[in-house]
Amino acid sequence: MNKRGFASDNNSGIHPEILESIQNVNNGHTIGYGGDPYTANAIKKFEEHFGNGIDVYFVFNGTGANVLSITTLAHSFNSVICPQTAHIMTDECGAPEKLSGCKIIPVETTNGKLSPELIKPHLHGFEFEHHSQPKIISISQVTELGTIYSIDEIKAITELAHQYGLFVHMDGARIANAAIALDQPFKAFTRDAGIDVLSFGGTKNGMMIGEAVIFFNNQLSQNAKYIRKQSAQLYSKMRFVSAQFLAYFENDLWKRNATHSNQMAKILEEKVALLGIEITQKVEANAVFAIIDDKISEQLQQEYFFYPWDESKHEVRWMTSFDTQPEDIERFCKKLETLLNA
Amino acid sequence: MNKRGFASDNNSGIHPEILESIQNVNNGHTIGYGGDPYTANAIKKFEEHFGNGIDVYFVFNGTGANVLSITTLAHSFNSVICPQTAHIMTDECGAPEKLSGCKIIPVETTNGKLSPELIKPHLHGFEFEHHSQPKIISISQVTELGTIYSIDEIKAITELAHQYGLFVHMDGARIANAAIALDQPFKAFTRDAGIDVLSFGGTKNGMMIGEAVIFFNNQLSQNAKYIRKQSAQLYSKMRFVSAQFLAYFENDLWKRNATHSNQMAKILEEKVALLGIEITQKVEANAVFAIIDDKISEQLQQEYFFYPWDESKHEVRWMTSFDTQPEDIERFCKKLETLLNA
Amino acid sequence: MNKRGFASDNNSGIHPEILESIQNVNNGHTIGYGGDPYTANAIKKFEEHFGNGIDVYFVFNGTGANVLSITTLAHSFNSVICPQTAHIMTDECGAPEKLSGCKIIPVETTNGKLSPELIKPHLHGFEFEHHSQPKIISISQVTELGTIYSIDEIKAITELAHQYGLFVHMDGARIANAAIALDQPFKAFTRDAGIDVLSFGGTKNGMMIGEAVIFFNNQLSQNAKYIRKQSAQLYSKMRFVSAQFLAYFENDLWKRNATHSNQMAKILEEKVALLGIEITQKVEANAVFAIIDDKISEQLQQEYFFYPWDESKHEVRWMTSFDTQPEDIERFCKKLETLLNA
Amino acid sequence: MNKRGFASDNNSGIHPEILESIQNVNNGHTIGYGGDPYTANAIKKFEEHFGNGIDVYFVFNGTGANVLSITTLAHSFNSVICPQTAHIMTDECGAPEKLSGCKIIPVETTNGKLSPELIKPHLHGFEFEHHSQPKIISISQVTELGTIYSIDEIKAITELAHQYGLFVHMDGARIANAAIALDQPFKAFTRDAGIDVLSFGGTKNGMMIGEAVIFFNNQLSQNAKYIRKQSAQLYSKMRFVSAQFLAYFENDLWKRNATHSNQMAKILEEKVALLGIEITQKVEANAVFAIIDDKISEQLQQEYFFYPWDESKHEVRWMTSFDTQPEDIERFCKKLETLLNA
Repeated sequence: MNKRGFASDNNSGIHPEILESIQNVNNGHTIGYGGDPYTANAIKKFEEHFGNGIDVYFVFNGTGANVLSITTLAHSFNSVICPQTAHIMTDECGAPEKLSGCKIIPVETTNGKLSPELIKPHLHGFEFEHHSQPKIISISQVTELGTIYSIDEIKAITELAHQYGLFVHMDGARIANAAIALDQPFKAFTRDAGIDVLSFGGTKNGMMIGEAVIFFNNQLSQNAKYIRKQSAQLYSKMRFVSAQFLAYFENDLWKRNATHSNQMAKILEEKVALLGIEITQKVEANAVFAIIDDKISEQLQQEYFFYPWDESKHEVRWMTSFDTQPEDIERFCKKLETLLNA
Repeated sequence: MNKRGFASDNNSGIHPEILESIQNVNNGHTIGYGGDPYTANAIKKFEEHFGNGIDVYFVFNGTGANVLSITTLAHSFNSVICPQTAHIMTDECGAPEKLSGCKIIPVETTNGKLSPELIKPHLHGFEFEHHSQPKIISISQVTELGTIYSIDEIKAITELAHQYGLFVHMDGARIANAAIALDQPFKAFTRDAGIDVLSFGGTKNGMMIGEAVIFFNNQLSQNAKYIRKQSAQLYSKMRFVSAQFLAYFENDLWKRNATHSNQMAKILEEKVALLGIEITQKVEANAVFAIIDDKISEQLQQEYFFYPWDESKHEVRWMTSFDTQPEDIERFCKKLETLLNA
Repeated sequence: MNKRGFASDNNSGIHPEILESIQNVNNGHTIGYGGDPYTANAIKKFEEHFGNGIDVYFVFNGTGANVLSITTLAHSFNSVICPQTAHIMTDECGAPEKLSGCKIIPVETTNGKLSPELIKPHLHGFEFEHHSQPKIISISQVTELGTIYSIDEIKAITELAHQYGLFVHMDGARIANAAIALDQPFKAFTRDAGIDVLSFGGTKNGMMIGEAVIFFNNQLSQNAKYIRKQSAQLYSKMRFVSAQFLAYFENDLWKRNATHSNQMAKILEEKVALLGIEITQKVEANAVFAIIDDKISEQLQQEYFFYPWDESKHEVRWMTSFDTQPEDIERFCKKLETLLNA
Repeated sequence: MNKRGFASDNNSGIHPEILESIQNVNNGHTIGYGGDPYTANAIKKFEEHFGNGIDVYFVFNGTGANVLSITTLAHSFNSVICPQTAHIMTDECGAPEKLSGCKIIPVETTNGKLSPELIKPHLHGFEFEHHSQPKIISISQVTELGTIYSIDEIKAITELAHQYGLFVHMDGARIANAAIALDQPFKAFTRDAGIDVLSFGGTKNGMMIGEAVIFFNNQLSQNAKYIRKQSAQLYSKMRFVSAQFLAYFENDLWKRNATHSNQMAKILEEKVALLGIEITQKVEANAVFAIIDDKISEQLQQEYFFYPWDESKHEVRWMTSFDTQPEDIERFCKKLETLLNA
């Protein structure tokens, strides 16, 4: 039995209902590459949540989803404005630049969130051919710092963007956690808030594999199927990703999972705060950022592997997951307490 | 219950032992991106088959594997010589060109197989900077026409290639079927025959998802891990691909599956030949290429979807799979017979 | 004093009227990157020849022109169909693939010329995402084998292309020689014949540096200015290319130069034919392709450097230029005769 | 006669000695693409200045030079660290990203200059495949803000870089102005200070066209000739760029031109300072950055076009050139004075 820890929500496994759904569709032959009935049904589920007129593409992973979003909506001479902490900036080894050709413009933030104020200084040089033409603003919901944009904050960004002819991409690797935190349906803080394209993640919330890219204006995505294929993101036995999304939406599995992991983060926050640990970001979803002494961090990692976040500040990141149990937190905090008191 | 047909070996599902293995590793947390013990074990399985000193990278799909192979061993100013029928030429929507920057040089063949004779005219222009520098020869084993290279044929190609400083890539999307057809271990017709890098496919032979790229000289693949990540081919919950490879090698699942599907193709070939159907390629693995009247093809496809191959020649392709049953062939041929006699 | 030979029309220098024009605009300051009045005037010259509603971009060289043409009109998931002998296929070190991401599909020809018959087999797979989507047919006028398309031959190609929704690109590196050979204005065999985008070359016909890309439908080229810049093809002191085009069109310099070099090729053809040399392609512009014994070729090259064309056939290429003189041909043939008789 | 202004040093024309040199080599035929004797001689000139064992490539423009430098020394999964104000960051429309695939990491500075302190926070994530691997530090000498690195400042950067296995690229678009400002030979603040690759500009200091890329370790540049060709930066009639470099180095034309333009900037600085204008950057080469009222700027631009630099601060840039005359400054300042007093 592998131990549960707080390194990342992608260190967790597959929710049993997801695996069961894979098993359920595992009979006989179906047309490959998405021509099967399960995929059609899974797309209908997305339409139930996001409305009609959308265009949905399943891909393998979050980087694949972000790259498909950007490459479909931007030319290589465009730029993408995002927070310095964005996954596309710091954690994709330059995949967006290589695959789309675009310039990525990182913006310093305090909490992983862009705002019109932070964006505006980068909205210049339009029609000046020397300058990468701004075309996409990319925000993450939940952010990579575990924070959440309110609907109004999102609208302020999309209104600014559209006024300048830009699109807004949302990296929703943890979008279920955001929906729970906001207590809002997906549509309210994406399509209805002016988002143009969404990377909809499932893997970090109990799925085995698979993400979706959702274009909210299907006039803009006619090329997406070719771009997905040319980006090596088209899955042959597609029904097995589709089956996961079916289970994910049925019986609100996404909701149960995200509710639980958000709650676990709250408990973790409280427990470590009681130990006198400084928390550096608002705990709004399933991440806790904390300052701890390097030596203690190192000792703690021997038992519970996790990632340092900002070594210059002795900041670390702890993530909870759909399968995190209260006793996991209990044991983790006890260990931490012991180390602190040693 | 979905019907089984002959459209493609990727229209089949997941072998139960594969799914069981996924389930077996589905407990607790493990480090993501391949830092888990199952991945280490899966790589050991590859070493058992291919020897030590290799470098193995798991990716999502065949296009991803081919692109990682090419991009790791070639510069953008290189060219890749392959048969006109190669998957990298005809079925990847230009992914190799886009992701590696290389020129792909297609060579006409009669049976999907390159030979020194066919390759030599393209080995020129070395050090002439106007000319894409030849660097990789790519062959598919099994070929896209269902034919098989003998070990001697492969050696003739790799010897020529190495003499000119080129690498040889093998697209082994159906490598298990080739091993059965040749009655040889994988190593005999890959590493021992001079192949430099191999796309090792599993999905078409009963796995759910996942391919491996194997570099036989690990001095040449130091950059592969970055290229995999930048190509959006690095899987977070890697243990679930690794678990599949574990099951695939344990108890020789790969061998049982490929033996079966090759046998089914032989039976299919015999049955349709008895109906007077012209077979256009040697049936050496799990594909049958045949000439049939367009009208009959159309009617047959209403019940059994399959792909036309060369419409100008009324040629179609039928693939058998690990789960093809003799009664599937029986019913298919009966239907065909009825149509022919109508 | 450098000797004149027959290696290539780009081995020649600058026509004096071109240099004079550079000198004439060399005073004071003008806005860079094409914002100067000379560039505006040069574009007017193009409009005089090609009509209104065109969009003209100056670039540095022929490869730059071809790449700008392709990248502006195609997506990375498209393919470009061209003769096997096309410059974009054989002489640009993969620049089109790298910069556009497109697949280049080479077609065997006997004389460097495509035809509807040769193109049709490649017009398939539309909307099938696995297949690079055909989007551009590229023909060279003059071809790389020194042959010429008639207007009707061009129209047959453009009609087929447009019927399938493809664009036709003309690589006009030697377009002036073609206009002379056809005895037609540029427009007659480009815009009026259905060509969509033209790489208009000047360097091989007496200019110092600079080519133009002309889009005949300026609705399709809105992005070209950004693509030119991002391709590193935007010249800061643009007036000095524009001045060359001004001189090139004034007093019909282009016509005088091309008429002369075509005539010189005719004389060369006659002279070497008299020596019993086999000519392998129709001499329609300024190139002579001939079969000569390897040993004689080698000896001749010691005095007159030139390029072997197809070594397997002992075929060589001789080019005449705007500055080739009858006595150059005389001396060359005398030398050849001496070697043949030795 | 075109008027001289202060918009950019690339708004100036060609120094007469440069044009004369082009004319001098304009006779007969020479082998194209750099196989001519003038190119060999021009490279020798570079060796006189930079020492032996270097590798020199001529390209068309500064963007081409920067892209060749980066693409030769970095893989697509690498990153390039540069000041926020770097030309490669702000003025090349994303050419570095598109052509090299690399991530460009901009660093805020006060004066356009990097320092070890500013660089260090970006030197992390080594061998972590999720992170673009830092490989190149790019500095501009003169910087885009007209400031100059001292030799010690450069050494501090190259020592840090080499300690971490990174290369240092210098964008020397105005390198002659830097040499004059430092009163040092080129080699002292490039090769001897640890620079690995240099974009050596001539166009902004009196040449017509052409830049050079100099690799100081020719073991690292074996691929550069293919990359230059594939980047569409290989000039056919190369002798005409080489001739310019010959003239540029003979009789110290580079030195005379740069000395003059630096002096003119000093005079301009003094004159506008006397008018009470705030100067925002040290005037060390041929640029003057100043704050002026938007309305006055607008009126002044009607007569003397120039570029706003940072509109939020009402900052503008004035450049002097090799052909700037004291009376140009006189007239410009008089006009400015009139506007200020209006």
